[in-house]
Amino acid sequence: MTNHFQPVALHHASRLINHGPTVLVTSAHGGRRNVMAAAWSMPVEFTPPRVAVVIDKKTYTRELVAASGAFALCIPGAGIAELTYAVGSSSGREMDKFAQHAIDARPGPVLGMPIIEEGCLAWLECRLIP
Amino acid sequence: MTNHFQPVALHHASRLINHGPTVLVTSAHGGRRNVMAAAWSMPVEFTPPRVAVVIDKKTYTRELVAASGAFALCIPGAGIAELTYAVGSSSGREMDKFAQHAIDARPGPVLGMPIIEEGCLAWLECRLIP
Repeated sequence: MTNHFQPVALHHASRLINHGPTVLVTSAHGGRRNVMAAAWSMPVEFTPPRVAVVIDKKTYTRELVAASGAFALCIPGAGIAELTYAVGSSSGREMDKFAQHAIDARPGPVLGMPIIEEGCLAWLECRLIP
Repeated sequence: MTNHFQPVALHHASRLINHGPTVLVTSAHGGRRNVMAAAWSMPVEFTPPRVAVVIDKKTYTRELVAASGAFALCIPGAGIAELTYAVGSSSGREMDKFAQHAIDARPGPVLGMPIIEEGCLAWLECRLIP
């Protein structure tokens, strides 16, 4: 039996759980819009297609998503890693991160959520399930 | 504006969402035990540490976890990729996958869940949150 296992601090316990790609979560409501990075997202069902994304209650994104009932996920490529980090490190409550970082976004075709294509691999418009 | 985006089938829509490492979910209750692979897992909180794992209602694991209120996550390394695939492709309802695949497991120190160390990088014993 190997014995290379060591206890880790509980708040680090999840570090090896699904450390897949970070996503960009975009949102919009009443003329305001926002984009944040989210490390914790996963599919939960194929049909109907459903995803789960952890968005802290304190975030402006959470407010916009609750108000509009919609959001989009954009999958950033490595080329915009710094931008992803930047939009995940500030709040959009007081300013428009799209303008601040010169991010080109257009309204999604179904729900009108901000869609970022430049530097991204894919995007999904999503409806919030209560 | 780049335009390399194409629609995909809805049931493939989540393929780029957090395709991080698959985990092994182990469970035990009333003298029975099981192990399955789960592709969809993620942290949901640092403190208290909480994780979410998608386990289909039809699985034997789901029964054991509901009955015992506990499970363990073991993080397989590439060396046991085939084993991970194998235990994710059969049901443990009629046989013991540990015995079938000669998997060495011992009871975890806190909850007694089957812990697999050989070929794994880390493990977590978890209590089910109703």
